[in-house]
Amino acid sequence: MSDFSVSVDLGGTNLRIAAVSIDGRLLEKVTFSSKASDPDHVISEMCDAILRLSSHYRSGGALLGAGIGIPGIIDLEAGMVRKSANLPGWSDYPVRHEIEKRLGARVFLENDGNVAALGEKWLGAARDVEDMAMMTLGTGIGGCIVLNGKIFHGMTGMAGEFGHVTVEPEGVLCGCGNRGCAERYASATAVVRMAGEAIASGGAPGLAKLAGSAEFSAQSIYNLAMQGDPAAQHIFRRFGRALGIMVADIVNVLNLEMYVIGGGVSSAWDAFAPTMFEELHQRSIIYAATAPDEIQRKPQGAAADIGSRTRRKTIVTRAVLGSDAGLFGGARLTHPD
Amino acid sequence: MSDFSVSVDLGGTNLRIAAVSIDGRLLEKVTFSSKASDPDHVISEMCDAILRLSSHYRSGGALLGAGIGIPGIIDLEAGMVRKSANLPGWSDYPVRHEIEKRLGARVFLENDGNVAALGEKWLGAARDVEDMAMMTLGTGIGGCIVLNGKIFHGMTGMAGEFGHVTVEPEGVLCGCGNRGCAERYASATAVVRMAGEAIASGGAPGLAKLAGSAEFSAQSIYNLAMQGDPAAQHIFRRFGRALGIMVADIVNVLNLEMYVIGGGVSSAWDAFAPTMFEELHQRSIIYAATAPDEIQRKPQGAAADIGSRTRRKTIVTRAVLGSDAGLFGGARLTHPD
Repeated sequence: MSDFSVSVDLGGTNLRIAAVSIDGRLLEKVTFSSKASDPDHVISEMCDAILRLSSHYRSGGALLGAGIGIPGIIDLEAGMVRKSANLPGWSDYPVRHEIEKRLGARVFLENDGNVAALGEKWLGAARDVEDMAMMTLGTGIGGCIVLNGKIFHGMTGMAGEFGHVTVEPEGVLCGCGNRGCAERYASATAVVRMAGEAIASGGAPGLAKLAGSAEFSAQSIYNLAMQGDPAAQHIFRRFGRALGIMVADIVNVLNLEMYVIGGGVSSAWDAFAPTMFEELHQRSIIYAATAPDEIQRKPQGAAADIGSRTRRKTIVTRAVLGSDAGLFGGARLTHPD
Repeated sequence: MSDFSVSVDLGGTNLRIAAVSIDGRLLEKVTFSSKASDPDHVISEMCDAILRLSSHYRSGGALLGAGIGIPGIIDLEAGMVRKSANLPGWSDYPVRHEIEKRLGARVFLENDGNVAALGEKWLGAARDVEDMAMMTLGTGIGGCIVLNGKIFHGMTGMAGEFGHVTVEPEGVLCGCGNRGCAERYASATAVVRMAGEAIASGGAPGLAKLAGSAEFSAQSIYNLAMQGDPAAQHIFRRFGRALGIMVADIVNVLNLEMYVIGGGVSSAWDAFAPTMFEELHQRSIIYAATAPDEIQRKPQGAAADIGSRTRRKTIVTRAVLGSDAGLFGGARLTHPD
């Protein structure tokens, strides 16, 4: 038996809680609804579950603490949620203090994108490197930089705002006030918007037909692209181009060993990755000078190839842990250094 | 008296050598021609000068070592110049070993842009912060990231290739193979090229007249802009826009406390900075959220205002040490941590 941590993935719809051993085994995982947005209620439920899990595994080892991934801006010093679109009512709530009080254990809060990156660093695609960045493609684009195995927060915890890198100076207006942010072209929202534009232009009969059916989503548009629909394929080439410009810029700034692309929309890899790698080769002198000879040609097997890569190559690859990345990363937060 | 270092700024045309006390006083500075590109000859001259300087100041304290800034790609482990456009014949020459042998002291090599950044960090614009980046505007754009007071090299020493951040995806072709790199719009070379384009278009009589005179340079085009010439002013607005997009991208990725803009062309600050700050505000959510209320409105006095700034502001400001930055940074390389 071994010491263990409890980790919490606090989403806007689900609350997932896991016990993870110090050597990275997922011992148990439970899921609740978190739609009752009253933080008192959610925190009670969370603490009950954490206590149940920890009493179960305590016979085998000590509880190192609880690591909680939260979608939003976290005030790490105060242990509070500063701003979260998905968790209204949580601002100014002393989350860490409340949970530590009820739990009698150390509690670590972190942005959910950051814990996912930490999970991929610990046990996933980036387990063999110390310096990496992760891009999480979802509704928007999240980002995290890990240096020396630790999350690099920057001055105000906002380092890694990759989704707002400009890829098209006169492009689509973004909610942030900028034009042409990467996430306006390389996210689930962007795929659906571009599909709507293609339908409006009249040259996308396959997409128009899809829009009349029940589900019109990034996933179904991707399926259409894989079936050979030219308009849907064009959307994912624009996606790959924007993502390639963004990743090239980040590679030119940081020169890290590895860039991991995760999030729900990364499952469309086959449709966007070829264009992304073309852009990367053209637009990053660092990538061009350090590109792997093989890996980017067979992205499906990239993760498996990492261990055997030649040193000093820049690896751009897919995340491998899926939605469990955050549970592993949350656990990793509680480890002593 | 105090311990001291010797620093060397090895340019393509000049070799500048200085003795700098451990508390940052420039004790003495000498300049030679380095046009004889034979490394044996240059290194002999360099070592003679270092020995003269160090014997002079050794009575007051110990020589900590010699720090040498070199334009090019440095192999830090091997202590060699891997590639330098301005120093042909230096590749594969065991620079550090040769100098240490003749000098009997520790020798530190570093890229010249990086030592300039380290100088600004130690004694210049960034003396009060630990995390900063520097952009050096010259023939191209150099860059350096400093984290916890130390140069961040990245995986292969190429971190901080800011000049090749894409600011115009379908823009001007760059020597690196990309289109629309920042340095194609915000460098001395770019200013002269854009002026030539303006003359060719027929709508720039002031620039055409200037081109007929003896000196047609970024400096003289800047002077024309400051005299009110619309075509010359337009060039520096394009310059500021490209630089603003580039800096915004870097701010979005890194979220550092300070970004210092140096290099010869930074003297055109008055002409490009207003546009640069407009772009920064629009294109970086981090900058917009943490912009100083006043400082960017009065860039001339920015360096003097830094000490009194409110915490957690993102400062973008001019370098203050000019060409001595590299001499100070070279000396700083030799300090024990």
